Amino acid sequence: MSSGKEKKTKLNYRYFYEITTRWNDNDVRWHINNAKYYEFFDTVINKMLIELNSLSLKDGKNIFVTAETGCRYFEEITFPDKITAGLKIVYIGKSSVKYDIGLFKNNYKKTSAIGFFVHVMINQQTKKPIEIPLNLKDDLKLYT
Amino acid sequence: MSSGKEKKTKLNYRYFYEITTRWNDNDVRWHINNAKYYEFFDTVINKMLIELNSLSLKDGKNIFVTAETGCRYFEEITFPDKITAGLKIVYIGKSSVKYDIGLFKNNYKKTSAIGFFVHVMINQQTKKPIEIPLNLKDDLKLYT
Amino acid sequence: MSSGKEKKTKLNYRYFYEITTRWNDNDVRWHINNAKYYEFFDTVINKMLIELNSLSLKDGKNIFVTAETGCRYFEEITFPDKITAGLKIVYIGKSSVKYDIGLFKNNYKKTSAIGFFVHVMINQQTKKPIEIPLNLKDDLKLYT
Amino acid sequence: MSSGKEKKTKLNYRYFYEITTRWNDNDVRWHINNAKYYEFFDTVINKMLIELNSLSLKDGKNIFVTAETGCRYFEEITFPDKITAGLKIVYIGKSSVKYDIGLFKNNYKKTSAIGFFVHVMINQQTKKPIEIPLNLKDDLKLYT
Repeated sequence: MSSGKEKKTKLNYRYFYEITTRWNDNDVRWHINNAKYYEFFDTVINKMLIELNSLSLKDGKNIFVTAETGCRYFEEITFPDKITAGLKIVYIGKSSVKYDIGLFKNNYKKTSAIGFFVHVMINQQTKKPIEIPLNLKDDLKLYT
Repeated sequence: MSSGKEKKTKLNYRYFYEITTRWNDNDVRWHINNAKYYEFFDTVINKMLIELNSLSLKDGKNIFVTAETGCRYFEEITFPDKITAGLKIVYIGKSSVKYDIGLFKNNYKKTSAIGFFVHVMINQQTKKPIEIPLNLKDDLKLYT
Repeated sequence: MSSGKEKKTKLNYRYFYEITTRWNDNDVRWHINNAKYYEFFDTVINKMLIELNSLSLKDGKNIFVTAETGCRYFEEITFPDKITAGLKIVYIGKSSVKYDIGLFKNNYKKTSAIGFFVHVMINQQTKKPIEIPLNLKDDLKLYT
Repeated sequence: MSSGKEKKTKLNYRYFYEITTRWNDNDVRWHINNAKYYEFFDTVINKMLIELNSLSLKDGKNIFVTAETGCRYFEEITFPDKITAGLKIVYIGKSSVKYDIGLFKNNYKKTSAIGFFVHVMINQQTKKPIEIPLNLKDDLKLYT
């Protein structure tokens, strides 16, 4: 576990999504396995993206792929705890977006884990980075 | 995807373990989902720890918990690609260990992804950090 | 997908638990992968067992292990759909319990999938089946 | 665990694929969680389908979806055990295929788990069952 000096509150985030844990999220230590935290990050980001009018996740020629991720773990989370995932966009570049995410366990006021996620928009065929469309950038600014 | 300037070769790692991918590692983008990379990190680290005589993962009062993790993604990996996970211990502190990990796709000479992992040894009951036993530190040095 | 003739309603179940889907539950077909349904089954069963006073899942010498499972899939479920898992105990034997489970997508009145799950109580050390304690049997009868 | 009377040998299967287990396949009981077995089933089936010349999994208008699955568990499998998954096609109908699968732990001669899987071919747009093409049926017969 990390020391917890960096813990954040809900004021640090702009978009929230509730996630239920599952029995087999628990690993042999009776707590949620570290890899599962990234499933929660992925879930809150894509839930937010699905809600944007400017982005068709399914049919678009241009898609977001993941360039970098990271997580600091402050406290155990254990099934059947519930998680509120908070999201804030901290950077919108030419073709990349960086998200900060915080996971709040049950009714905890401070994050049990924090992480970040970098998406890069690429063309599905060429696999090369392309510029994020302006209307999508505008939408993403809602969560900065 | 990250730019790839930081790609590494097998010379950067000290312990190796082969991992097979699975059909449902692929997400909607027909490539291995970002969260799965941490399953591979976890797997190579624990495989190495299981082999150490100085550590009883199952019955010990003192266990490693995860404090921090991170990953940079250079290239798609897709089922049924095979992965060779390389491991190097880059730091052994009083109660923490930091591992660098590289994932090599099929016969690729350079990493398709690199990551790190920080373990902290705690007492299972108090949940407080404790000092890593000397004989375990000695064993871990094999992979520095 | 199965034909759907066997679809059930909430009247067929005795215990319910809501589960959120995750982005990477979706496989390449943009729907929840078949293996994930068993995570949902496992989750509703263990949530119910955790609530029973008569059973200590964590510290007991005697544990339930899984002997047999099965699932029929009627309809796609896709992230971010929500699932209500319904549970009914259909058999309590000397050392085994059989559960029927139904998964209801969003506000659907009929099951999108149905399944079953057989638990056998064993002694953790001998790995042999043992008789389910009477007070646990009594508790389980609540959900028949 | 099931009684084991139904255990099978490799002579019962026609196609084989080796799968490595992962650290977090283990659940709190220090053995592979029941849901993971279906990931192994899915993996051997799709590996075989990928190898068939007659089927384009990625670009086809007609896809296989899962109608029914089931598994009997005879013996614990634990990370870092390795698994050989054996496959046999036991039925090829107008639009459906039924596979039997057996999982062999390490060098075990008998199955530690057996299962089945039913695929139905549907049109991606209409979601209705369609007839499996004749050349694909011919290819599938290789594994009956």
